Amino acid sequence: MPKPICLAVDAMGGDFGPEINVPGSLVAARETGARVILVGNEDAIQAELSKHRHNDVEIEIVHTTQLAGMAEKPSDILRRKKDSSIQVAFRLVREGRAQGVVTAGNSGAALACGMFILGRINGVDRPALASIMPTLKNPVVLIDVGANADCKPYNLVQFGLMADILAKHVLGVVTPKVGILSIGEEEGKGNSLTKEAHALLKSSSLNFIGNVEGRDVFAGNTDVIVCDGFVGNVALKLSEGLGNALASMLRTELKKSIWSRLGTLIALPAFKRFGKKIDYAEYGGALILGLNGIAIVCHGSSPARAITTALQQAALFVDKKANEQLVAALHVNTELSLFSRAGRTLASRQEASAL
Amino acid sequence: MPKPICLAVDAMGGDFGPEINVPGSLVAARETGARVILVGNEDAIQAELSKHRHNDVEIEIVHTTQLAGMAEKPSDILRRKKDSSIQVAFRLVREGRAQGVVTAGNSGAALACGMFILGRINGVDRPALASIMPTLKNPVVLIDVGANADCKPYNLVQFGLMADILAKHVLGVVTPKVGILSIGEEEGKGNSLTKEAHALLKSSSLNFIGNVEGRDVFAGNTDVIVCDGFVGNVALKLSEGLGNALASMLRTELKKSIWSRLGTLIALPAFKRFGKKIDYAEYGGALILGLNGIAIVCHGSSPARAITTALQQAALFVDKKANEQLVAALHVNTELSLFSRAGRTLASRQEASAL
Repeated sequence: MPKPICLAVDAMGGDFGPEINVPGSLVAARETGARVILVGNEDAIQAELSKHRHNDVEIEIVHTTQLAGMAEKPSDILRRKKDSSIQVAFRLVREGRAQGVVTAGNSGAALACGMFILGRINGVDRPALASIMPTLKNPVVLIDVGANADCKPYNLVQFGLMADILAKHVLGVVTPKVGILSIGEEEGKGNSLTKEAHALLKSSSLNFIGNVEGRDVFAGNTDVIVCDGFVGNVALKLSEGLGNALASMLRTELKKSIWSRLGTLIALPAFKRFGKKIDYAEYGGALILGLNGIAIVCHGSSPARAITTALQQAALFVDKKANEQLVAALHVNTELSLFSRAGRTLASRQEASAL
Repeated sequence: MPKPICLAVDAMGGDFGPEINVPGSLVAARETGARVILVGNEDAIQAELSKHRHNDVEIEIVHTTQLAGMAEKPSDILRRKKDSSIQVAFRLVREGRAQGVVTAGNSGAALACGMFILGRINGVDRPALASIMPTLKNPVVLIDVGANADCKPYNLVQFGLMADILAKHVLGVVTPKVGILSIGEEEGKGNSLTKEAHALLKSSSLNFIGNVEGRDVFAGNTDVIVCDGFVGNVALKLSEGLGNALASMLRTELKKSIWSRLGTLIALPAFKRFGKKIDYAEYGGALILGLNGIAIVCHGSSPARAITTALQQAALFVDKKANEQLVAALHVNTELSLFSRAGRTLASRQEASAL
């Protein structure tokens, strides 16, 4: 019998700590059969556990003494908070006691822990943040949503290769359609980064469909969209902000008269279904791809449901041996990879000579 | 008595041609007192004019014989369509017969006509597209939304200076708050472009408030947000796409049962007010800033209302002598400008030596 999947949860992470991480973990453990290690202050975790039925799932607690703040500098957390729940949770993965980690804590710290505690998969130049977003049709994976503000063209190809594996094994898409976020449909449109990346993606093993414009992201005709981490982060946060702004404007208008209040009340189930469809909690968090182990960072204000979804995604990722698939995909694209490396070396030489 | 403002309209532009451009122009002429020159096929324009009252406004027709397609290459339009309505409309501004031009036609062609027919204001390195967008509070000017896919830090400073004038004189903001679109609130966050631009903006004459994140764009706490044309175009089109996707999802849910249909019907006035609030037609089009003359590009599917708004904005821009203000603002920031030029020359030398 294979060893069951074991996942570590940063129980103190996020705006609500154990209150959301514990119940979210219990549901995930029950639904996936995975063992969950709750990392954090034992008393706080036990207090929350006592409020829920949990004798039917495998739960372990690893006690930690330090707290990593949401606004603290990642480098400070890494250096000075060796016994923080976020750092210990990542260490459990490095030590092989867990195969994946979920945190709703400081996302910069999660990236730093991923890089320095877990380390990159051999051959991955830059790990990246992948976000699964709702669209009019199937969800789309947007990568990178913030790990790498400045990218080289070959980084975008690796992002595509990593997100392709995610779409295949976690979202169940047989042949993911991979596009590049740009500012025009034609191949020649874009900035210098996307134009070069476009050429590389075309020669990769991916099912590359070309440029995707901002207005097409939510149409749902693409499974994976690659971009640099600056553009991706702006896109992700802009979507969040616009969604909230529109909801707030509509709510204001609907509350203005007794009639529209009545209408809203009658149509409430429809508003609720709509809310569920676009609720990011249903989509978990952002996956850090390219690490030795899978790590998922949830929004600081995540509800328990988002923690459950993230753990389910992590369990699927581990179960499907996605990281091994990823190494294989990088291998298939070795030539491309070699070409990129050559390009990179050339570029660094030029940078050096320009100094 | 000062000469009245005269504006040229590309009457054939957009998906609907004279059908929207003519009535849109008539309303604007009536409301602003500006003279409007309708440029395009005279028969088509006359046919549309005959459907509306127009003896109370000053309208002139300039007949053209060629049509510039929405999908045609801008360089082809510029070279081979000398008698297209879009090109002739821009030429009227160069010849001093009009002070501004509005088109719902090919936006790439409008940019090309702006650059090659009107030319840049002395001292402006790169003209840019400014879009006025609705937010929870006052409208925000996002610049650049697509004219310059690759930018240098000092370009972003000039974008800020130009949009500041727009916010002051067209939107009536006394001291516009200018931010830079980035991926974190702290000064050190962003990509290499925004970090360098941040430093330059701080030393400019602008009321610079620092980094603005994607989620804050629609909160309405900033009057001007600068970014490169790639990021801005993605942001603009993403907002448009997300707005449409959310509306479509909500509509689907509301249509699912007889009860929610009834509720929607009762709340219809609220939905209509909401629709008007976020309708881009109320916000005109994107202004090309930095040219000798003002040019506004409307969405291809613009209704007449958008043409009217664009003409009103153009009339205000001319009336407030915004281009002269712009020259003055560039002058105040000369030191910065000189510094930037030096930086640019150095950069091109490095680029040349790297070849």
